[in-house]
Amino acid sequence: MHYPESLAKLIEGYMKLPGIGQKTATRLAFFTINMKEEDVSSFAKALLFSKRNLTFCTICGNLTEDMPCVICRDKNRDISTLLVVEQPKDLMAIENMQEYKGLYHVLHGVLSPMEGIGPNDLSVSSLIKRLQEKTNIKEVIIATNATSEGEATAIYLSRLIKPAKIKVTRLAHGLAVGSDIDYADEVTLLKAVEGRREL
Amino acid sequence: MHYPESLAKLIEGYMKLPGIGQKTATRLAFFTINMKEEDVSSFAKALLFSKRNLTFCTICGNLTEDMPCVICRDKNRDISTLLVVEQPKDLMAIENMQEYKGLYHVLHGVLSPMEGIGPNDLSVSSLIKRLQEKTNIKEVIIATNATSEGEATAIYLSRLIKPAKIKVTRLAHGLAVGSDIDYADEVTLLKAVEGRREL
Repeated sequence: MHYPESLAKLIEGYMKLPGIGQKTATRLAFFTINMKEEDVSSFAKALLFSKRNLTFCTICGNLTEDMPCVICRDKNRDISTLLVVEQPKDLMAIENMQEYKGLYHVLHGVLSPMEGIGPNDLSVSSLIKRLQEKTNIKEVIIATNATSEGEATAIYLSRLIKPAKIKVTRLAHGLAVGSDIDYADEVTLLKAVEGRREL
Repeated sequence: MHYPESLAKLIEGYMKLPGIGQKTATRLAFFTINMKEEDVSSFAKALLFSKRNLTFCTICGNLTEDMPCVICRDKNRDISTLLVVEQPKDLMAIENMQEYKGLYHVLHGVLSPMEGIGPNDLSVSSLIKRLQEKTNIKEVIIATNATSEGEATAIYLSRLIKPAKIKVTRLAHGLAVGSDIDYADEVTLLKAVEGRREL
């Protein structure tokens, strides 16, 4: 290794990120050295602050700096609907849509017998507790990913919630808007046919 | 924007890096939040330290923490050969080869009339000064990139240096080791034919 120590450490730091190997890390490190000092220091601060300041909302499990999170705190949200997602990033994707006005619950994972992840490893019990406490929740929308684990988790949750006479729904599966039929995989196409609607 | 402030700032930080758009930056930011605290803080420190501690060697222009750099300081290097590169990363690529034992000179760019970069914007005068002072330099190897700017710079430097009766050489151009002839571009192939050697 012929890099000065601080450069080597920077390359090492970049290599900890997903999808970044030695070549890319080296390129990013050299780029960093040529960046404006203030940009580098604000990036470094953002790294430290985000790690230190962000925690999970004790109510919904969203990433937040304050407790409860900005959504749970908002009096204007529709408290009769609860949307269940796997991860905070899924919640944020739905928030970016700017259409959904209800509340959220983040599971922090999916059921996966292969990886030994059961209901106790997810925030399932806190979800059930919320549903029991807030009798005003009328619909639970399960927005886990369209993977086999996501599907299994959705079915598991719906069986758990339905006895409480709460409506349980699942996001529609089908063709992505703007996509070509001949590029869609068979399962997606099957779901699109099954879920067809009258015009 | 529905991200907590420190997360948004982290995404912004990642987006300053080359080739990283909003999607990748968001993915990296979420990954960072799930990283070990010590890994994040050592990455942040590496960013700050590398920016603060690294300067250019006043002799050769290499990136260094100490003055002069580890190569210029090394008494075991062959002081009769000087290899000229565009950037510190080129120097490091040659050092990683572990074969070249001479000294270096980093130009910090190439001549580029298109971008208005002339000899005064590069460390050309310090190169000439080095050659005049150290009469023991017998060969200057010009290792600028095989681009049109790199070529032009090599020709410019050789015209400048040759009158001082110093041997000026250029890295060989040709097929990359392990590459297929039918994938090589015409110019590379031409250079490979021109530079053919007797077996």
